[in-house]
Formats: sequence, C-alpha cells, structure tokens
Amino acid sequence: MVVSLEDRGLSTGKLTRLRRMLHLHGAQDGTVLLLPYDHGLEHGPRDFAANPRSGDPAYVLDLAVEGGFNGVVFQIGHARRYYGAVAGRIPLVVKLNGKTEIPPDDEPLSPLNATVEEAVSLGADAVGYTLYVGSPRQSEDFAAFRRVREDCERFGMPLIVWAYPRGSAITRRGGRDSFYAVDYAARVAAELGADVVKVNWPSAEHSPLVPEEYRREVPPQEQLPRVVASACRALVLLSGGDHTDGDVLAERARAACDAGALGLIFGRNFLKRERADALALANRLHKVLSESLTPAP
Amino acid sequence: MVVSLEDRGLSTGKLTRLRRMLHLHGAQDGTVLLLPYDHGLEHGPRDFAANPRSGDPAYVLDLAVEGGFNGVVFQIGHARRYYGAVAGRIPLVVKLNGKTEIPPDDEPLSPLNATVEEAVSLGADAVGYTLYVGSPRQSEDFAAFRRVREDCERFGMPLIVWAYPRGSAITRRGGRDSFYAVDYAARVAAELGADVVKVNWPSAEHSPLVPEEYRREVPPQEQLPRVVASACRALVLLSGGDHTDGDVLAERARAACDAGALGLIFGRNFLKRERADALALANRLHKVLSESLTPAP
Amino acid sequence: MVVSLEDRGLSTGKLTRLRRMLHLHGAQDGTVLLLPYDHGLEHGPRDFAANPRSGDPAYVLDLAVEGGFNGVVFQIGHARRYYGAVAGRIPLVVKLNGKTEIPPDDEPLSPLNATVEEAVSLGADAVGYTLYVGSPRQSEDFAAFRRVREDCERFGMPLIVWAYPRGSAITRRGGRDSFYAVDYAARVAAELGADVVKVNWPSAEHSPLVPEEYRREVPPQEQLPRVVASACRALVLLSGGDHTDGDVLAERARAACDAGALGLIFGRNFLKRERADALALANRLHKVLSESLTPAP
Amino acid sequence: MVVSLEDRGLSTGKLTRLRRMLHLHGAQDGTVLLLPYDHGLEHGPRDFAANPRSGDPAYVLDLAVEGGFNGVVFQIGHARRYYGAVAGRIPLVVKLNGKTEIPPDDEPLSPLNATVEEAVSLGADAVGYTLYVGSPRQSEDFAAFRRVREDCERFGMPLIVWAYPRGSAITRRGGRDSFYAVDYAARVAAELGADVVKVNWPSAEHSPLVPEEYRREVPPQEQLPRVVASACRALVLLSGGDHTDGDVLAERARAACDAGALGLIFGRNFLKRERADALALANRLHKVLSESLTPAP
Amino acid sequence: MVVSLEDRGLSTGKLTRLRRMLHLHGAQDGTVLLLPYDHGLEHGPRDFAANPRSGDPAYVLDLAVEGGFNGVVFQIGHARRYYGAVAGRIPLVVKLNGKTEIPPDDEPLSPLNATVEEAVSLGADAVGYTLYVGSPRQSEDFAAFRRVREDCERFGMPLIVWAYPRGSAITRRGGRDSFYAVDYAARVAAELGADVVKVNWPSAEHSPLVPEEYRREVPPQEQLPRVVASACRALVLLSGGDHTDGDVLAERARAACDAGALGLIFGRNFLKRERADALALANRLHKVLSESLTPAP
Repeated sequence: MVVSLEDRGLSTGKLTRLRRMLHLHGAQDGTVLLLPYDHGLEHGPRDFAANPRSGDPAYVLDLAVEGGFNGVVFQIGHARRYYGAVAGRIPLVVKLNGKTEIPPDDEPLSPLNATVEEAVSLGADAVGYTLYVGSPRQSEDFAAFRRVREDCERFGMPLIVWAYPRGSAITRRGGRDSFYAVDYAARVAAELGADVVKVNWPSAEHSPLVPEEYRREVPPQEQLPRVVASACRALVLLSGGDHTDGDVLAERARAACDAGALGLIFGRNFLKRERADALALANRLHKVLSESLTPAP
Repeated sequence: MVVSLEDRGLSTGKLTRLRRMLHLHGAQDGTVLLLPYDHGLEHGPRDFAANPRSGDPAYVLDLAVEGGFNGVVFQIGHARRYYGAVAGRIPLVVKLNGKTEIPPDDEPLSPLNATVEEAVSLGADAVGYTLYVGSPRQSEDFAAFRRVREDCERFGMPLIVWAYPRGSAITRRGGRDSFYAVDYAARVAAELGADVVKVNWPSAEHSPLVPEEYRREVPPQEQLPRVVASACRALVLLSGGDHTDGDVLAERARAACDAGALGLIFGRNFLKRERADALALANRLHKVLSESLTPAP
Repeated sequence: MVVSLEDRGLSTGKLTRLRRMLHLHGAQDGTVLLLPYDHGLEHGPRDFAANPRSGDPAYVLDLAVEGGFNGVVFQIGHARRYYGAVAGRIPLVVKLNGKTEIPPDDEPLSPLNATVEEAVSLGADAVGYTLYVGSPRQSEDFAAFRRVREDCERFGMPLIVWAYPRGSAITRRGGRDSFYAVDYAARVAAELGADVVKVNWPSAEHSPLVPEEYRREVPPQEQLPRVVASACRALVLLSGGDHTDGDVLAERARAACDAGALGLIFGRNFLKRERADALALANRLHKVLSESLTPAP
Repeated sequence: MVVSLEDRGLSTGKLTRLRRMLHLHGAQDGTVLLLPYDHGLEHGPRDFAANPRSGDPAYVLDLAVEGGFNGVVFQIGHARRYYGAVAGRIPLVVKLNGKTEIPPDDEPLSPLNATVEEAVSLGADAVGYTLYVGSPRQSEDFAAFRRVREDCERFGMPLIVWAYPRGSAITRRGGRDSFYAVDYAARVAAELGADVVKVNWPSAEHSPLVPEEYRREVPPQEQLPRVVASACRALVLLSGGDHTDGDVLAERARAACDAGALGLIFGRNFLKRERADALALANRLHKVLSESLTPAP
Repeated sequence: MVVSLEDRGLSTGKLTRLRRMLHLHGAQDGTVLLLPYDHGLEHGPRDFAANPRSGDPAYVLDLAVEGGFNGVVFQIGHARRYYGAVAGRIPLVVKLNGKTEIPPDDEPLSPLNATVEEAVSLGADAVGYTLYVGSPRQSEDFAAFRRVREDCERFGMPLIVWAYPRGSAITRRGGRDSFYAVDYAARVAAELGADVVKVNWPSAEHSPLVPEEYRREVPPQEQLPRVVASACRALVLLSGGDHTDGDVLAERARAACDAGALGLIFGRNFLKRERADALALANRLHKVLSESLTPAP
C-alpha cells in the first residue's frame, strides 16, 4: 500500500523534511526503516551485552548508513558528538525526552533532554517524544508534549510520538501490550497532534481486564489496520521490540505495510545482531517494504 | 424561549463569533446544535465500536455539515489535519484540554493540549475547556482556566466550559450527576467567567449525601431551570450523554429550551447511530429547537 | 471611634480608591458596609436556598445600591457580566481567588481566578484575597499573595485580605474560630502587607488546645480590640458569618466600631433575608456605624 | 576581636551598606546589635503576651532607636507601614521570607513574602532569608535562596541568612540545637553564598544520634569558634533565643565576640522585657560588644 | 594512553577552556588532577574532622596551587569569597548544584545553587552538575540538567557531570556502587550530553540484584574500560572516594589511565591527609598520570 504524505495537514516544512527522509534516503521509494538508538539511556548498557560493538554510537551510525536506513534516532548527547561525521548523509531524528528504567514505572514520565530548536540547529529531520499514555502523570506529560508540538509547528519539524501505554493504571486494565492499550495510545497521539506515531505490536494474549468493547477477541490480522485507523491521518511506524526471529520480523513488516503503516522503527533487532546479520536483516526488510508498494495481483 | 446574546457582558469579538455560529450556520435562527468529537481521547476508540465509521474524523465532519450542526468540537490534532477541508463551512470549536480515562479519576485534571492563540490561527469560533469542579486538584485547574479565560478576553474568543463535577469528594457528597453537583458546577463556571456552560442532565436518582439544602427532592422539570439560573448570564448547553432513545432526547431538547438553555451539544448519540439515523435525529432536534422560538399558545 | 486612613503607609492610589469607597459611597462618612457575593463559588447555590432571588447577581447589585453599601464583592465572572450596569454608582471589589467547598479542607488553597490588572481594567476600587492562615500549603498561598500584593503596590489598588485560619493544623490547635486563631490570622495579614483585613468573630467557646499564652480566657469584649491591635495599621473589617439575629448583628457592629474596626462586610445576613428585611438591616447597621463616629458622652 | 569586613569578597554595594550599618549606627564602632521583629508572623501574637506593648511595631521602632540598635528586622508589611517614620535614622533589614508555626514542622519551607528589589525601594541596608537546613524540601528552599542571592549580587544588598536546622531528618540526627546541626547549618549558608549567617546557640545537651565525628563532646567554649570557622568568610551573628537572664546574655555576647562573631541579633529578650529593662539590656550588651574591640591584656 | 580532546564534538569555547585546564595548569601535559571541595555542603564540617585545617577554603586553595592541581571545585559561596586571591593561577570549576546529607536519600535531588552565567562571570573553566541517576525525581533532575547543558553550549563552558546512582530504586537493583550502576550512570551522562563524566570506582562486591546481563561477574580490570566505553566520547574522571591508602590510589590512577580515563578528581584523600602527606600524594599521582602518556614497552 502506498502511504501518501498528502492530505495529512502537514505544513510545508514538515513535508520538506519527511519527503527528504522518505525519498532521498533509505530505499528512496517512500518506505521507511528507522534505527532508534536510545537504549543506553532507557535500559542502560545492558542492551549492548549481546553485541558489545553496539554500545558505540559510531558503530551504529555506520550500520545505519550501510544498511540504508532512512534515519537514525539519537538522544542529544550522541547527536552532538557523533552525528557530525555523517551529517547530511543520513537523516537525524533527535529523541527529545527519555529516562532511565531504574525508578519504579507505575507513574512514568519522560523528561525533556533537548529542545526542538536544538534539533533544528543540528540539522535534524524529525524529533521524537515518548508519551506515556495512561500514566497518572499525564497532565505533566501532555503539557510538555504541547510545548514540543507548538515548537514543531513553528519550525516545520515532523513530530514522531512514541505512543506507549504505561503505568499502574493500564496494568489494571489489561496491560500495556493489549490491543486495547495500543489502539488507545495511537488515538491519543493522533488527537494531540502527532505527525507520526510509533506503536508496539499488540500482544497475542488476551486479558479479561480490558473495557467491554475490547472483550471480544480481534484476530491479529485485523488489529493492526484498526490501530492505523485509530491513528487517523498521523503516519504509523511499527516498533520491533526485543530480538526476534527474522522470519517473524519480515512477516510483521508485511503486515504493517498491508495495514497502511508508513514503515518500521526497529532497534534491538539490529543492535543485538552481529553486523553482517544486521545488514542482511535490513536488506530483507527493505525488500518487504518496497514490494508492498506494488501489491501482488 | 428566545435566548438573547445581548446584556451578557460579551465583548465585540465574542459576539461576532457567537452570532456567526448561531445565525450563519445550523438552523440559522439562533438555536444551537453542536457535535463534540473528543471521545477518542477521553474514552479511547471504544466509543467507536457501535459505529466504526465514527472513528474517522472525516466522517464526523461530513456528518456535521450534512446534519446542519452549528459547529464541531475537535481536539487540536484533528483540527489541524481535518478541519481545513470544510474551513468556513461549519464553525470549529477547539477543545483546549483533555485527558484519557486510564488513570484513576479521584483527583482528575484535564491538561491543556492547545492554546487560544492556536485556535485563533485555525479560524475557530469558540474554544472549550473542561473544568473538573470539586477535584482536589482544583487549584491547578482554576489556574489553567484563568489563563485560558484571559486569552479569550484578549482575542474575543467565546469560552465554552465543560462544567463537570468529578473526583472522590463529589462522590462522597452524592455523586457527580446529582442535581446538587450539576447545579454547583454550573454556578462555578459562571462565577469564574465562562461564556457558555455545558452541563449534564441531573440524574433522577436522589442521594442522601447531598448538602442539607438539596435534600428535599426537586421535581425533574424544576431542576433544569434552576441550573440555567445558577449559570447566571452564561449561556447553557445541554449534554446528551451516552446513546439514548430519540424520543427521550427530543423531550430533553424541549425541556432544555423551556428552561432557557441556548441549545444542545450531543456527541455519542450521533456517533453511535448509523449515518442515516444520526441525520434523522439531527433533523428532529433542529425542529424541536426551532419550534421553541415560537412557544405554543 | 473615627478610623483614620492617614499614617497607614498607603500609597496615593490606594488612598484615592479607599476614600472614594468611604466618602463618596455608602453613608459617605468614612464608615464601611460591604456586601460580599462569592457564595455561589465558595458554597454553591445552596446558600441561595433561603432566598432564591439572591442567586441572581442583578438582584444583589440592586440590593447593594438601594441599601447604600460602600461596595459589592464579586468574582470575576459576575464582575464582567453584571457590574457594567451600575459602573461608577457603587464601588466594585474583585475577589481575586476562590474555590469550591467540595474537596477536603485539611490543606486548603484558594486559587487565583483573576488578576489585579483585570480588576483595574474593570474600574474596581479594591481587590480581595483569601489567605488560609495555617494551611499546610501556606508556601503556595504566600507566594501567590506576594505577587498580588506587588501588583497592588504597582497599581495603587487597596488589598483586602480574608484572613481565615483553616486546615487540619489549626483544628489541632483549638479550631479556626478560636480567639487565638483569629488573632494570629489578623497578625499574619498585617505582617505580609494587607491594607485591610477581614476577620471572623472569635468563637465564645474556649478550647484547651490553644497555645499556653491563650489558655487564660479573655472576655469577649477584650478580644476584638486585641485583634484590631494585632492587625497593626491594616484596617479591619468584621465578617458577619451565617444568618444571625438583627440585634446580635447590631451589637457586633457596635463592638466592632468600639474596637477600632473600619466597618463590616456581611454577606449571608443580607442574602438570606427577604429584600425588605435586608434593606432594613442595612439601614440599621448604617446607623450603628455612623453613631460610632460620635461616641456617647 | 575586631571583625573586619575586608577580604570577604563583598561587592562595593554590600560594603557600603554594611559599613553604614556598623559605623554610622548603633555604637558606631563596627559592632552589631540587631533587633529582629517577625515574631507576629513566625509565632503569632502569643510572643507579645509577656509585654503587650511589644505587639506594636511603632513601639519596637522607638525601642530600637532609643536602644541604639544597628538595625531593625521587619517583614514587608511593617516595613511599608512603619519604617517611614524613622527612615534613615536606623537601618532597615527586610526579612524576605517567613511562615506561621501552625502547620507541622517536619518538612518546613519559608515562602518569600517580598523581593530584594522591594527592599531596595524601601531603602533597606540588608535583607534576611531563613534557610531550613536539612528540611526535606531543601530543593525548593535552595532554589528560592539562589534567586535571592543573585538579586543581592545585582543590587549590592547584604544577605543575612537565618541558618536554621529544622525538620524531621535533623531530629533523627540529634536535634536542631546540637553543635553538629548548628555547625553544619553555618557551613551550608557559607557554601551557598550568605554574606552574614545568623546561628543559634548550640545546646549544652549532647545527643548520641549525631554523626560519628561529633560524638566526642566538645566543650561549650570551643563550639562557637568552630561554628564561626565553619562559616568561613561569612560574618556571624548570634541569636538570643527565648527570654533569658541578662547575665547569661552578657556572657554569651562576650563569648560570641571572643569567637569572632560580628555581633548579636536578639529579639524576644528585648520584646519580652519592659521598656526600661530592655533599654538597660541593650546598654549592657553594647558595652560588652565595644569592650571586645580592645581585649583585656 | 593519551586521551585526545579532538573528535568529541566539543565547541570552540569548551575546547579553549579544557585545553587551558589540561595544558597550562597542573602537569601541563594533558593529564588531569582536580581537587573537589564541596564537602562542607554535602557532608557538613564532619569531613574536616580528620584534618581541621581542611575546613578553611584558603588552605585548600593553597594546597591546590602547591600541589599542581589542574583545578579546584567550589560551590558558589567559596568561589565568590576565596577564588579571587588565586584568580587565573589555577582553574576554577563551579559546582552548580549541591545539597546536604540530612534529609533521607531515597529520592535525592540536588538543587541548583548557581548558574553557568555566574560561573562565566567568575572566570571559571568548567562547571559541575550532580545527576542522581535512578532517583525517582529524575524528571526534575533531567530538566534542570538540560537547562544547564544548554547554557553550557551557549557559553562554551565545559560541563562535568557527577554521575551518581542514588535512591531507593538503585538499592533494590544491587546498590549504587555496583558495576551495573556505575556503568549505567556513565552512559546516562553521555546520552544526555555531558562533556566530562565523574564516576565512582565500582565496588568489588557483587550483588545478585543487578539485571541479568550483569549477573556474570566482570573482573575488576575489565570494569573500568567498559565504563569508559559506556561514556562514549564524554571524557571520564575517576573519583577517589573516602580516605584510602596511597598505594591503592596510585594503582587506581594507573588503572584509570589504562582504561582511557582523562584523569582523577580526588577530594577527601587530600583533605583528610596532613598538608605534607597531601602534597606528596599529589606528586605521586602526577607521576602516575604523566607516565601513562608513554606506556611501558
């Protein structure tokens, strides 16, 4: 399915940056494969244990360029110290907020570590913001998000929202990975003005704690299209989650394309593979994405 | 009953926008029927289960135009991405704050997701703000409301207040839908400077927990006029609540008009009906509203 | 006792406005009788049950004009919508903060609903601020008060402080109506820079929980003069509290004058009486106040 | 011991004001005797019970002038209403923060009631700030202090810090009056940039809860010099605490001078004495201070 | 190992100041030995008990100059009052935040006591900020850090981060001194944009509470290089901790150099030694550092 950028209410500046990311980089055909790299902050260096080289941002940048990614996602520290070497060769997404996993996660809030203006100054083509949908601290979260969104409007900067259901309240309603939670999170991002929404794969497990309307089980292949619909005109990127088998990932990529998602944003699946495997996986996913543009007859 | 906009202390800009909404749109006779559409944020996509098409803001906009509504209420995300297609054909109300229903509701607070200035820039004719009357976080709520109200004065933007009694304290005093709670909430909105107050229908059930002055049961037909009186010179809109029978709604519309309310703001009753039924309901309510202008002899 | 405005460190602007209130309105002889009207916010419409007409701000304004009051106290909503009709005929006091009585009152805080600047723009002759003396949230309260006071200095606007002991801590020290609590509250307002302090009548009941220095019972007639002394050069207004017998009120008015108070600020005693009774009471109190200027030989 | 103002890193403006306070007022010989008067806020009028006249700021000002004090310390309310009468005849210290004693004291924080700029506008020669060392709310306290300190740098205004160990945490470490607590508090004020530190007399009682380094008992006469040393180049003023025998106070004054303190800041010992006694005490303390400039051979 | 300042994404201003610190001061060969001195605030004067002279900032400055340190770290109070005497002779690092150890440490936050701008005005060559990695108050901490970092970018001021795992959450995950905690903290500082990271020596003890990836014991000599790697292009300084044997310190210094650290920042090991011993230790450590530039063949 060809996902168009038109008719989404995007300003000229946002279109400019998104088209650059989609058509001048990666497969250059409008598909998207992004490499997020903020695990050192969110999980700590333990995420680099499977493949110690992945702890080095220079390695990751090189992997992203070689693998033909449409962009790399860095926190401000790495963006300032590493991105210069490949500036202009691969788009930069500055992840504006982020936190450690050390404190309890029942009332999560992801503090801002950089501004949209700083991302502009570094030549970034998008910024990222994690919204902890359902957190008891949502009033602080939404307030910070609003200011980021306003700055994005002002600077014509695409805003990618990590729409993550989290906190004790969502646990009591069936958990963060339920179709209900993912669907709701996508919608919240859309209602609040995200340009792009990053969602997780809904879990196959079904919880009886979800609201009534979600108690009827929805077949997996129907879930993703509904999440994409819930995101309205916001573009959708699928997360990869933790290390997963390549066939499963390819299948998910296909399902994401079929569902109308813009593309993929896979981190640990590339970081935890050896370089050659990671590049092979990138290649394979690029193929799936590009094939989706001309659906089988 | 003809509800006049005069002598309500409204500035020129507010009058301009309200008259446009009342006399150039909808029935064009001074009555009001608004279509609110922030359920995706407040309740999540579960509210679209009864009628999946209602999950699409484009469908809702089309319904609002076809149904001759006086305006549609959107959160900022939808306002930015969808309203452009019908800009100027139907008034836009930007709902400035909003939250999910996931966290516990004992100390609710609805964070700001957009500003009055942004609503102005989109050509909106009014803004909406949810005030959780009685919430233990009222000091934060009132403070945010004050700034919104000041901006509304500055820009001549009508301010519609969702006056919602909520939180553990109102539960201990008889519940959020008691006549006491609805009456108090309308008053609070008026005292704090709302131009328009959206109130819920008081519940028919009577609780012994309300303050002494409300312990004597008030006949249903007397409740609404008293709520309208409590709102002083602020205009009153009646909510529709969840899906309800058409006859009941028509009766409520009539009662609202008799009580001196300006009009109706019904969401789920249109969203949860199929398109044809929704349009028929809109038609029916328009009739009730217009008939109210020339009361039976 | 003639209470002078001189030698109280009042700026020219404050003197201008206070003299206008004292000598061009009401009895025009320097005495003060104010009609506060924020009960709809603080207590809800239940305070209007005894006399339903009192729920209408227009009725109250008319009563204030007819009764020869020196001013009427409104929250910003009513000030904006109703005061215009009598602008200049009776002074306006804008009550800047206020809250509902719904949430628990153990840590009260009264949020700001308007600014001094807005009061200036409406032609107000004074502003009011409720200080919850002893509340665990006093750091927020004092901070908000400071900014209001600074604005009052800037604009030459008299600042009337509702000095109310409240919260769980004062309950543990003998209660909010003890002589100790009232005396301390008056002092706090003076130390923090109030121009006028509104205090409640100390309760006749004596609690053993007050600090040692207050354990010796002080005769009622000695309490008020001491409270006035504790207020230093801030002017003192006595509250009326809930509906009370006219003789008692007249006696209190006399006691207040003897104690050196500037005047009275009685709300419910006028609102809960029928119009004629209310006007008669106003007349009676005016007499007591004026007689106090020439004490019996 | 002659305490020099040189080599303390004081700006020209601070030196100007401090020298004025030390050499143009009081004994005019570089010694300091200050009269603090914020008891009405901090403790309430109960502190005036022993000598009711002390409740009147005019009495206190007169006492300060007659007693040859180097300055009087007022909250902003009294500073605005009373200081004008003696402006320029005795230095004014505006106490910028302060609170009531009503709420629990386990997490104390003293809110700002005035600004350095306002103190400048009143002709003050110094400002005071209470720092509750060890309070769980130290992050708010330090933040407010920083802004005050920066304003003091900007205006050349001497900053006197009431360095008070307070809160549940210091109670668990041996109490607020332990040598440990007083010593630490003096140091904190110095590290954070106080110009002058007001410390309490360490208690003679010894608690086993203090940190190891303080468990060895330090003779009383060694404690004060160590506190003065801990204050580094910040000048030290000794508090008087509650009403105490004159001989004890004179002895303490002598000890303070021997220890290198700049002088004394005694409130209740003057307020709770009758006027004549208070003036006699002032006279006696002046003598002790002045004699200290020429130590016995 | 020669640690280069190139290719670290440092601005011209930061390079200027860091090169001055590394090549015009101390051993002038690119190695670093810093003397931190904020113990009076962080621990109180108890840290000076072992060597009372160390309580005097003038003594410490003299020690730093004599010992050929590359800089001294002061809180703002000492920086303002003491640094002037040696201004330009030894670099100044202003520690911007700091707190007492009195309140409970389960949710630590270190408030800002000075600004980058003030450090600039004093001629400082770097600023320090303590980041309590893992504290439940990380959202406040990160927010304050972000503003400091932005100011550092604006002024070209090197930013040294005290990356300290602290709080109840890290205790539950194996403790603040575990290799896991130190490694994670270094990474967080790098991700958030530190120029230099100060880390503690990982403890030799191994806790079973650390995350799975850290449960395999890592030999001590492998830990430090991994921490340096986790810090990416941020420079690393090793802390000295409490008083330790000189041989151990020399060994650690060697290990730090081998691991690629920039140098050492030892406080108590100099403060708690007599002056002669302290100077001897400085001499010894300088030698170890300089030798590291030409590794043994």
